[in-house]
Amino acid sequence: MSDAVRAKRRDRTGRSAGLRQLPFGLVRNRYRPLDILGEDQIEAIHRASLRLLAEVGMEVLHEESREILRRGGAEVEEANCRVRCDPTLIEELVAKAPPVFTMEARDPAKNLIVGGDNLVFTAVGGPAFASDLDRGRRAGTYADMRDFIKLIHQLNVIHQEGGGPIEPTDLPSETRHLDFYESVLTLTDKSWQCWALGGYRVRDAIAMAAIANGIPQDKVDGRVIAGTVINANSPMRLDIPMGEGLVELARAGQATIATPFTLAGAMSPVTLVGALAQQNAEALFMIALTQLVRPGAPAVYGGFTSNVDMRSGAPAFGTPEYAKAAMVSGQLARRYRLPYRSSNVTSSNCVDVQAAYESGMSLWGTIMGGVNMIEHSAGWLEGGLTASFEKLIVDAEMLQMMREFLQPLDTADVGEAMAAIAEVGPGGHFFGVGHTLERFEHAFYSPLLSDWRNFETWEETGALDGTRRANGIWKELLRTYVEPPMAPEIREELGAYVARRKEQIGVGML
Amino acid sequence: MSDAVRAKRRDRTGRSAGLRQLPFGLVRNRYRPLDILGEDQIEAIHRASLRLLAEVGMEVLHEESREILRRGGAEVEEANCRVRCDPTLIEELVAKAPPVFTMEARDPAKNLIVGGDNLVFTAVGGPAFASDLDRGRRAGTYADMRDFIKLIHQLNVIHQEGGGPIEPTDLPSETRHLDFYESVLTLTDKSWQCWALGGYRVRDAIAMAAIANGIPQDKVDGRVIAGTVINANSPMRLDIPMGEGLVELARAGQATIATPFTLAGAMSPVTLVGALAQQNAEALFMIALTQLVRPGAPAVYGGFTSNVDMRSGAPAFGTPEYAKAAMVSGQLARRYRLPYRSSNVTSSNCVDVQAAYESGMSLWGTIMGGVNMIEHSAGWLEGGLTASFEKLIVDAEMLQMMREFLQPLDTADVGEAMAAIAEVGPGGHFFGVGHTLERFEHAFYSPLLSDWRNFETWEETGALDGTRRANGIWKELLRTYVEPPMAPEIREELGAYVARRKEQIGVGML
Repeated sequence: MSDAVRAKRRDRTGRSAGLRQLPFGLVRNRYRPLDILGEDQIEAIHRASLRLLAEVGMEVLHEESREILRRGGAEVEEANCRVRCDPTLIEELVAKAPPVFTMEARDPAKNLIVGGDNLVFTAVGGPAFASDLDRGRRAGTYADMRDFIKLIHQLNVIHQEGGGPIEPTDLPSETRHLDFYESVLTLTDKSWQCWALGGYRVRDAIAMAAIANGIPQDKVDGRVIAGTVINANSPMRLDIPMGEGLVELARAGQATIATPFTLAGAMSPVTLVGALAQQNAEALFMIALTQLVRPGAPAVYGGFTSNVDMRSGAPAFGTPEYAKAAMVSGQLARRYRLPYRSSNVTSSNCVDVQAAYESGMSLWGTIMGGVNMIEHSAGWLEGGLTASFEKLIVDAEMLQMMREFLQPLDTADVGEAMAAIAEVGPGGHFFGVGHTLERFEHAFYSPLLSDWRNFETWEETGALDGTRRANGIWKELLRTYVEPPMAPEIREELGAYVARRKEQIGVGML
Repeated sequence: MSDAVRAKRRDRTGRSAGLRQLPFGLVRNRYRPLDILGEDQIEAIHRASLRLLAEVGMEVLHEESREILRRGGAEVEEANCRVRCDPTLIEELVAKAPPVFTMEARDPAKNLIVGGDNLVFTAVGGPAFASDLDRGRRAGTYADMRDFIKLIHQLNVIHQEGGGPIEPTDLPSETRHLDFYESVLTLTDKSWQCWALGGYRVRDAIAMAAIANGIPQDKVDGRVIAGTVINANSPMRLDIPMGEGLVELARAGQATIATPFTLAGAMSPVTLVGALAQQNAEALFMIALTQLVRPGAPAVYGGFTSNVDMRSGAPAFGTPEYAKAAMVSGQLARRYRLPYRSSNVTSSNCVDVQAAYESGMSLWGTIMGGVNMIEHSAGWLEGGLTASFEKLIVDAEMLQMMREFLQPLDTADVGEAMAAIAEVGPGGHFFGVGHTLERFEHAFYSPLLSDWRNFETWEETGALDGTRRANGIWKELLRTYVEPPMAPEIREELGAYVARRKEQIGVGML
């Protein structure tokens, strides 16, 4: 690209001096969460869910999990894989999970605290499709996945990669987790989430994270360098791959983000309270299992309750129900002193007003609900089927705004400000006074994406809407991407691990 | 339009059986507001603002207001129109304003309660430009204004017209308020806001509202049938037209929505706390003046603190600072037991993701802040310069979602829901069970604008983004608009009033 072309493009996005964004930083939410239910209502949900686990029970398809549960005191009906647990057993086990833990990143400056009043923004994980304005929606590829990881690295407000932003469908499915792990460990030095469909994918993740982070394999124990979401197959079922993944994570002391997928009206009762009680039962069950495997293993209470559109059966996200469910989930997680995970979601099929207001509803609902980890916080589109390059930028702006909103308001300046008003006097303006000049550069939030110029200037420079501007921004971020340095011997060891494991998996050694 | 064309268009918007929307209904916010400042910080702002009024004072250009203030105990310096008030005077006067009052509509079923935990959604007021996807941005006309009022009438979630959604720049400026009043009183039976630039515009509003509402002119006293925003000319100035409007409103016992325009960095200090202390001073001063005119006159604490972009000087709206300011304003208003007004704002120049996320930030900030009246809640674009037909629909959807979010979550069903889970069992689904069938029709929020269909269906039916769908919706609402009935003698009396007043104003009789 010539300098002239480059200058022109910069001009079209209204940015002449590079992109502005906040630096990497941990986020704390010091505001009081909004409790939308009373304590008695929370207790009713708690009791209903424990009774569900005692009477209906969970179907656990993974044999080792059933055995662990049986030895731990659960009642196991082998004929139909049904596991029932006494309420006190669940309560005792859940109480063993830590309220706060640290997830380590390749760059220790990017280690994350999960729990308490800390707030982690994790990027989208899992979509099978990639989408952008230029190339449209298509099946995800290895190249798309790598580009998306580069952008996650570039966007400072995103704390953590979220478990593969785009499925590399052009790679063999048995070994593509190795390609993803190698990519995420070399393209970014932020922490990340692994895959848990089967125990071997977890073992590979831990081994590769240890190599990348420079930790001898025998020194991993006691440090959290891997972790990911374990979904229940709602209603009330834990399948074999997820059971394997959970047991493997807990055994190694890695993080289980226990998340039922309780879509009210489909996999859950058609009332929100019913879906939430079911969510609570499934989440507590999975967390209890982690503590049977290894007491004190880090576990996160995951909430993903939403509802289906009762006309079409399609899932709806970022709805009023979603915001309420997110808040109740926070109340429940705090009741158990567990870190709480929720998500930034939308059903929209494109990066439009709907995508923005549904994501806004999600972010406010979860953050006011006291969330600790927002999965899919950036890049999710179309009910999670698609990772969108433009949505990633829109979300990054919204996350930056939330982070800034969570900065407590400093009131120390009130005296000096009043002196400035006296100086300016009625009817004047503050542009030129000393009080302004001393502070103006860092006084207010400076946006990544928003365009605050007047209509005429905006129109003259192309009348680009926010989605088109986002398109320019991700391209600029990709253009200026620099891979974070890695010691050559570590890079080599990672590559050798991947090569060896691909051979092994090729001959059936999972 | 032929039926075939109509059917096709309906199909393109994905709606075959008419538009779905919530019925008209009052909204209460039973959730606890979020206090982001401690009591001591609020007290510091309170004290600073009272000191400002005592030491710097307000410049009051309206002579009658100065005289009222002088008689009321303020210290008036006539040479520079400066009015200084003792803190106890301000506090005593502000305490006389009612915490809650009712604004009457032509249709008594649409009367509104302002204050307490009630929440009023008022449509955009004041833009000079109109905009839609077909015709672009243009100077507002009488026809545009009337269309917009029809849509405000049609959209049930909007409680109140907001003081002229679009300026009818094609009408003579001295009398166009009469055309606006006649339009709003005939095209909708919802309550509305009048113009206050000069006392005669307020007197005409009260007289015409009395005619339309069927109240004899001598029975108006004690009923609130008119009201509007009175802006300070920040910093610390009340000009002649606004002073006249305020005095006229208060004298007639009509509602003053006292709103400083404190843009931090321009008309206010560059720190948020400084701007908020100034806002507090100006708002309290105006409210105190209403109580000197008539103790007990309804008055609303208006907050409009935002900030300028310090690079360009352009105002920024819907920012993190805006959300924080909205919350602190709520704390201040509650300290004085006054109804609290804020706004739904954005700086975006088009109906895009930025418009949606800035509006989302505004709505959540104000509503979590315990707002009672959201001015510009629907239709505002481009920093308030433009009323957008598509934005009106986007906002109506967002308001519907907030209203639904504010519906307390019913937990009574938990027992029956647990029985449904037992019935379905692990791994099943809930589509066909009795618990679902009995409830599915009204179980969840049903959107006005959001499209939850899958990508393929959405693409096959035109791949319309939310803004394009909004375009179809407002056209459909205009097409199906029916003027609310009005008794012929009242209609005639209104028309005669307008004709008479136009003649009078033509010969200088304001």
